Amino acid sequence: MTNASIITIGDELLIGQVIDTNSAWMAQELNKAGIWVNRRIAVGDLWGDIWKALDEASAVSGIILITGGLGPTADDITKSLLSDYFHTRLVVNEGALKNVKHIFETVLRRPIIERNLKQAEVPESCTVIQNKRGTAPGMLFEREDKVFISMPGVPHEMKGMMTEEVIPYLKKKFKMPFIIHRNLLTAGVGESFLADHIQAFESALPATIKLAYLPNYGMVRLRLTGMGNDPAQLSQEIDARFTELKTMVSEWMVTDEDISLQEALGKLLKTRKQTLATAESCTGGYIAHLITTIPGSSAYFQGGLIPYQNSIKENVLQVKKHTLATVGAVSEETVKEMITGALNLFQSDYALAVSGIMGPDGGTEEKPVGTVWIAVGNRQTTETRKLWFRFDRQRNMELTATNVLNLLRRFILSQP
Amino acid sequence: MTNASIITIGDELLIGQVIDTNSAWMAQELNKAGIWVNRRIAVGDLWGDIWKALDEASAVSGIILITGGLGPTADDITKSLLSDYFHTRLVVNEGALKNVKHIFETVLRRPIIERNLKQAEVPESCTVIQNKRGTAPGMLFEREDKVFISMPGVPHEMKGMMTEEVIPYLKKKFKMPFIIHRNLLTAGVGESFLADHIQAFESALPATIKLAYLPNYGMVRLRLTGMGNDPAQLSQEIDARFTELKTMVSEWMVTDEDISLQEALGKLLKTRKQTLATAESCTGGYIAHLITTIPGSSAYFQGGLIPYQNSIKENVLQVKKHTLATVGAVSEETVKEMITGALNLFQSDYALAVSGIMGPDGGTEEKPVGTVWIAVGNRQTTETRKLWFRFDRQRNMELTATNVLNLLRRFILSQP
Repeated sequence: MTNASIITIGDELLIGQVIDTNSAWMAQELNKAGIWVNRRIAVGDLWGDIWKALDEASAVSGIILITGGLGPTADDITKSLLSDYFHTRLVVNEGALKNVKHIFETVLRRPIIERNLKQAEVPESCTVIQNKRGTAPGMLFEREDKVFISMPGVPHEMKGMMTEEVIPYLKKKFKMPFIIHRNLLTAGVGESFLADHIQAFESALPATIKLAYLPNYGMVRLRLTGMGNDPAQLSQEIDARFTELKTMVSEWMVTDEDISLQEALGKLLKTRKQTLATAESCTGGYIAHLITTIPGSSAYFQGGLIPYQNSIKENVLQVKKHTLATVGAVSEETVKEMITGALNLFQSDYALAVSGIMGPDGGTEEKPVGTVWIAVGNRQTTETRKLWFRFDRQRNMELTATNVLNLLRRFILSQP
Repeated sequence: MTNASIITIGDELLIGQVIDTNSAWMAQELNKAGIWVNRRIAVGDLWGDIWKALDEASAVSGIILITGGLGPTADDITKSLLSDYFHTRLVVNEGALKNVKHIFETVLRRPIIERNLKQAEVPESCTVIQNKRGTAPGMLFEREDKVFISMPGVPHEMKGMMTEEVIPYLKKKFKMPFIIHRNLLTAGVGESFLADHIQAFESALPATIKLAYLPNYGMVRLRLTGMGNDPAQLSQEIDARFTELKTMVSEWMVTDEDISLQEALGKLLKTRKQTLATAESCTGGYIAHLITTIPGSSAYFQGGLIPYQNSIKENVLQVKKHTLATVGAVSEETVKEMITGALNLFQSDYALAVSGIMGPDGGTEEKPVGTVWIAVGNRQTTETRKLWFRFDRQRNMELTATNVLNLLRRFILSQP
């Protein structure tokens, strides 16, 4: 199998200011195409470090993808380095120059400055990959049997190049093995417990099929990856194993597709032609955000309310003053009344509600930080759960979202 | 200056299933402590690859931090490898065993299984770092003048260990140079333009002070980093430069602290003892989520409505039926009426509103994907802007959020 290394360049990655989402996305795309990423490395804007990373990567991989270090500001040195690394010199590329001018005239609608014109310079020996979304061109070098491709670090520019140019090129250039993934998502079960539960299954897998555990905030994704040269045989083999696995984890399985919990929930609602509304206090809009990251969610999402203050719970969502005064906003009664309020306000088939203390402040002896009440329901009935988390605000929000979305999914499935 | 390498282990990082947020956070913490991260590398669960990464990292760095590869499932091999790498053997550590039992009894409240007891085994020559948040212990090895520290990949477990044990240990062990950062955040100005604008300033910086550009969705953070041995002199020097820089970019400056746009907005509202509400259609709760990620946001955030369907805009937010029927939901009139509706519904001092087409579907000739109207206002007046973005849904949401939060910030500043 052809191996790839991903090199990301930029001090910002080493200062920790920027989270490297590029290389995860690139790894996914390469993997789908049958290319195994065997290392990812991030180095700063330092000549020696970049050079060394190129040497090391090309020692272990046939494909070396580089992102970052091509911006218009002074801290970028990648292009000069690549020019030296491949014993060539920087020249203006006419196609790249035309593109820089085009982007400024039609997209940015700003006067072009000298600094941007410099972006049309590339090492003479490279093949330019056009950047339809920005001014920095991509560059492709071939040396012996290895391919080096340098792309800008701006995510949507890199993604456009990868999809339209790089992946098709690599597929043509390298003979790929046949690769198949099967994914399923579980929720509400720990990684260790799951591993114990399917230990015999895992041990019995043939060498051509690998099982991976991918835990993420109250969920564990299980991925089977098969690799081989006979597509028909591999398909048959992996499908049989996948069916077996699904049966074993059916109790906790959210979906047997490679989609998120919120997407699985959306598909369920779409199939049933039903709608949903949210009423979230402590998660502050995060659950609605998760739901609406899915394109087409307007088919089933009516809307949401974030009643951050108690006055809003009372006035807009009709939570009783008495309830708030006696048992408080973080209580079973409150989330139940929030469900009723949301169903009325949004005229939806289902509603979900959450109220809790996310931290780091706001906890009491009786209701410590991490106490969350969640509820899901329709006109007929409501289900509630009390959750207790620890640690940080972000994590508490994520876990609350997973729990309430999964509770709602199960609730809908239990409805006629 | 002492250099550090970060090695993250796990096939999931190479499949691209998981975005590596750990190493960004670790880099930040190390940097604050005066330790420069000179490389980050991610490798899969493969003996040879991990071994090679350890060799390479220790060739260039004095501190090698390792995360991942310590979970309870079968794909983890890190511990055995470390045992071999340091010529020792796995033994049960009593402290770690006690911790595993404690976590299961008091936190997880589940019966302990064999697989978890194995987590108490560590290479004999290491110093165990207690994991107060989980079952996998941290391990510290010293070899010649180098330090290797292995931590679990679960973010909050790793973070706890870093803050409480690892950073204090490193600070004691290595003599750190004095390091100072000064950050400011700009919005509404391009990186190239900014770079041109401050070119003379940048060229005149002394060798001890570095300037970094950190662009992120319509914002650019500028960071000055000073390094030296005389704290007083360095402080004085960097403060003088920072003052100069602030004056040059004052037009676009959001904040001169190392905080986000939403945090700067929150501080402004807190100072003025005023409140805010949101009405977001196309961003689906993302802006409210950004606002409420800030601890203490309940001091100024009244709440938000996500009127995803037009019926909700009409019935809950009092947007006129006539407006929706004639100029549509994505229009200046609609976002203006949403402001009025939000101010009434939430009884807040200010409101923001957004309505647009995020894509990939839903565009028309007249209103293509990426068309967004934003508005901010109070009881007296409303300001609106029409935005036009391209590309993907996630990016459109991020850019919409940046634009409306910054418009509101400027609006508030313009108020008496």
